[in-house]
Amino acid sequence: MKQFIEPQSVALVGVSRRTGEDANNILENLLSYGYQGRIYPINPNTSEILGIKTYSSITEVTDHIDLAVIATPRSLVPRLAKECSESNIQSMVIVAQGFTDANDDQGKQLQKEINNIVQSSQTRIMGPNTFGTANAFLNFSSSFIKVKMQKVPIGIICQSGIFFVGFPETPLVGKGIDLGNTCDIDFADGLEYFENDRETKVVAMHIEGMQDTERFINIARRIARIKPLVALKTGRSEQAAKAAQSHTGSLTGKKEVWDAALGQSGVIQAGDLEELLDLAKAFSILPLMKNPEVGIITVSGALGIMTIDGCRHSDLEIGKLSDNTKKLLEAMSPPWLNINNPVDIWPATLTSQSTMKPLMDGLEILLSDDQLGAALFICAAFDEKWSTELCQSLTELATIHQDKALACCIYGPNGNEAIKQLQYAGRVAGFPTPERAFRALSQLNKYSQLRGGL
Amino acid sequence: MKQFIEPQSVALVGVSRRTGEDANNILENLLSYGYQGRIYPINPNTSEILGIKTYSSITEVTDHIDLAVIATPRSLVPRLAKECSESNIQSMVIVAQGFTDANDDQGKQLQKEINNIVQSSQTRIMGPNTFGTANAFLNFSSSFIKVKMQKVPIGIICQSGIFFVGFPETPLVGKGIDLGNTCDIDFADGLEYFENDRETKVVAMHIEGMQDTERFINIARRIARIKPLVALKTGRSEQAAKAAQSHTGSLTGKKEVWDAALGQSGVIQAGDLEELLDLAKAFSILPLMKNPEVGIITVSGALGIMTIDGCRHSDLEIGKLSDNTKKLLEAMSPPWLNINNPVDIWPATLTSQSTMKPLMDGLEILLSDDQLGAALFICAAFDEKWSTELCQSLTELATIHQDKALACCIYGPNGNEAIKQLQYAGRVAGFPTPERAFRALSQLNKYSQLRGGL
Repeated sequence: MKQFIEPQSVALVGVSRRTGEDANNILENLLSYGYQGRIYPINPNTSEILGIKTYSSITEVTDHIDLAVIATPRSLVPRLAKECSESNIQSMVIVAQGFTDANDDQGKQLQKEINNIVQSSQTRIMGPNTFGTANAFLNFSSSFIKVKMQKVPIGIICQSGIFFVGFPETPLVGKGIDLGNTCDIDFADGLEYFENDRETKVVAMHIEGMQDTERFINIARRIARIKPLVALKTGRSEQAAKAAQSHTGSLTGKKEVWDAALGQSGVIQAGDLEELLDLAKAFSILPLMKNPEVGIITVSGALGIMTIDGCRHSDLEIGKLSDNTKKLLEAMSPPWLNINNPVDIWPATLTSQSTMKPLMDGLEILLSDDQLGAALFICAAFDEKWSTELCQSLTELATIHQDKALACCIYGPNGNEAIKQLQYAGRVAGFPTPERAFRALSQLNKYSQLRGGL
Repeated sequence: MKQFIEPQSVALVGVSRRTGEDANNILENLLSYGYQGRIYPINPNTSEILGIKTYSSITEVTDHIDLAVIATPRSLVPRLAKECSESNIQSMVIVAQGFTDANDDQGKQLQKEINNIVQSSQTRIMGPNTFGTANAFLNFSSSFIKVKMQKVPIGIICQSGIFFVGFPETPLVGKGIDLGNTCDIDFADGLEYFENDRETKVVAMHIEGMQDTERFINIARRIARIKPLVALKTGRSEQAAKAAQSHTGSLTGKKEVWDAALGQSGVIQAGDLEELLDLAKAFSILPLMKNPEVGIITVSGALGIMTIDGCRHSDLEIGKLSDNTKKLLEAMSPPWLNINNPVDIWPATLTSQSTMKPLMDGLEILLSDDQLGAALFICAAFDEKWSTELCQSLTELATIHQDKALACCIYGPNGNEAIKQLQYAGRVAGFPTPERAFRALSQLNKYSQLRGGL
């Protein structure tokens, strides 16, 4: 798998002369990332593209090549793949669609020819119907859509390019593997790569279906003991299963079977796409929770109440504050205020010169309370300046209290920016609503408890 | 209620001389919005603030005043409110906290004194513990936190300032009413204002509790016949109810009772804050649905499958495509592609000069299919240029097909911007994940069916 994710040299088979906007040119993308490995574009109709020397065929290249990316119409794929295999290229990404995901006999026939290559050689194939891999730590991606990579400690294994295209709120791809139709390289291979990868703290998976579930369960169970695995299993109804068949040719399997298999493997299941993104972020940033008691500090009573509402369906507890914690908070607040968890901190700001200081003082009191397993901080990002100061202060506090998970709900006009900023700083997990922050903590607690038992 | 939301003249009782960052100065905010009404700041210690003449007491003002905003420490409130009432000011916002929301006897005593004013005069009081009102169409707000208003056709009635502070993805406050403790002005009053307000297409409510539920139900049922009402009822567990008591002094009532009451009133209930925001947007933009069949067109098969998964718990149907629709889509796509709903449109782009054109052509085919009640379009916003073109194209199509609801899931790096842009244009409702888009359509369908029966 290393050659797929950390290739030192790559052949781009079928790269087009068309560049610029809308051209979806893999070579152009690769140059734009600043990839430092050797690149061998294969195109029989030209001698250079974007200043890079091209080759008319893979057989012309005599240097060792780690990875070939085949991006041609489907009918050419078997011949080109065979050439690569015969040139001792052991790792291949097949981008083209129209194999087991297609509706016709030709697709099935082409797939058979590819399977023959895998069976008769050392060659491993990713795809077909895939964006391939991405690695922000190496400025590499085989994707024809430009990937916004960030060096976040998140590894993703998926069956769709959407995770490479990305989502606005969440830098997701530290390292990415799009398995496509999984004709050969499967989830278990991806997991094995991430098992000992120091740049990856959490592995997020988007699963439509897979070939060898037994191998997956064994490996997942082993890895979940050392790093969190989160998964969104899609294709959960009959109708969705049918759609998955024509998307990646996947047999999705029954929902109940998957629920049991993932549970047994120690994989935390996300209910939908949004939760998968939230969990990838939370698990990549936060330490484990020692107990399910959460201390909440909020500038808005209303959002505190929504948090308690969100608690109903989780194993988390709105923690009881210790006498000492209560006493410290009471000393900051006007005498008429009822100090309870969630702690309404806004009244404390009314008698303070600074608005920020009482917020952080209050939060620090909760972070220092040994009876609490995590803290949730709820605050607005009013404008850019406030937001920057807020993120810095939160990150500083979380750095001092590294053993306690700190999640935040950040609303207000600059909320999205603040949430991103917190993720880059890598100490605090931010969310736009209290329910989402609480749900993430709830799953963190679940994993924290589960890990001991695996 | 008109004087609260459309005041032509406003007295700011207790406005501070402190201005600039962090000062939370109501007068300064009001000037920054460009409010054109008359302003009377009351402060006994100065003769002007920010170039505006101040008065030492409300009794000094001889002009007619529509609305007084009282923003002083709580102990001064009863005396000042009485002065306003005696000066024939019939509408008053009381900003201060520490009345029924407080833990002490003084709070209860102060509340009694305010109740006396309401009972013995024509004066109506909003609050205490409130930001008051906001009206983007008049550049007015009584909030001490600067409100980002937008002329969106959304009215909000809430019991918290968070809705005025806002949320990053959703311009929410066309007109806003923060009821705070609801000592007098209640949800029913807010609804009556919005009933015939032409600038408001949907009313969103954040309800902790209310005084007169019977009046609310009667009025809501009447209004739901002509415009959609959506509500988030919070404080649903015993613990949350206790927190609501100290937030706005509200008695929250049992969840089951509320579910029945809101259902009976024709109010669409949101499950959490995020859904409330999503529904406010969707209902303010989309036409009603004639049937529950949704046509889905997607650049990503994976997101299509997630949409079907999201369908499981709703009354929506993944519509069967008519023969004509299928034929038209087949003509655009490579022959190996299985045309089904959701329609995978990406393969059609591979043989097209433009990426955008086949997307829009495909969508138009679905919008023209009479058997479908709504269309869902799933696409990435790759970059700013693409995103702008995408939003324009979508808005144009939706303008031609005004009778069919068009929701979009927009992912990708520029997704948030695109979603906002669509909302400003006011024809297409955009969401970051397919499940959220589908959930909004599902509630739109519910309301469409329900409206006939009210």
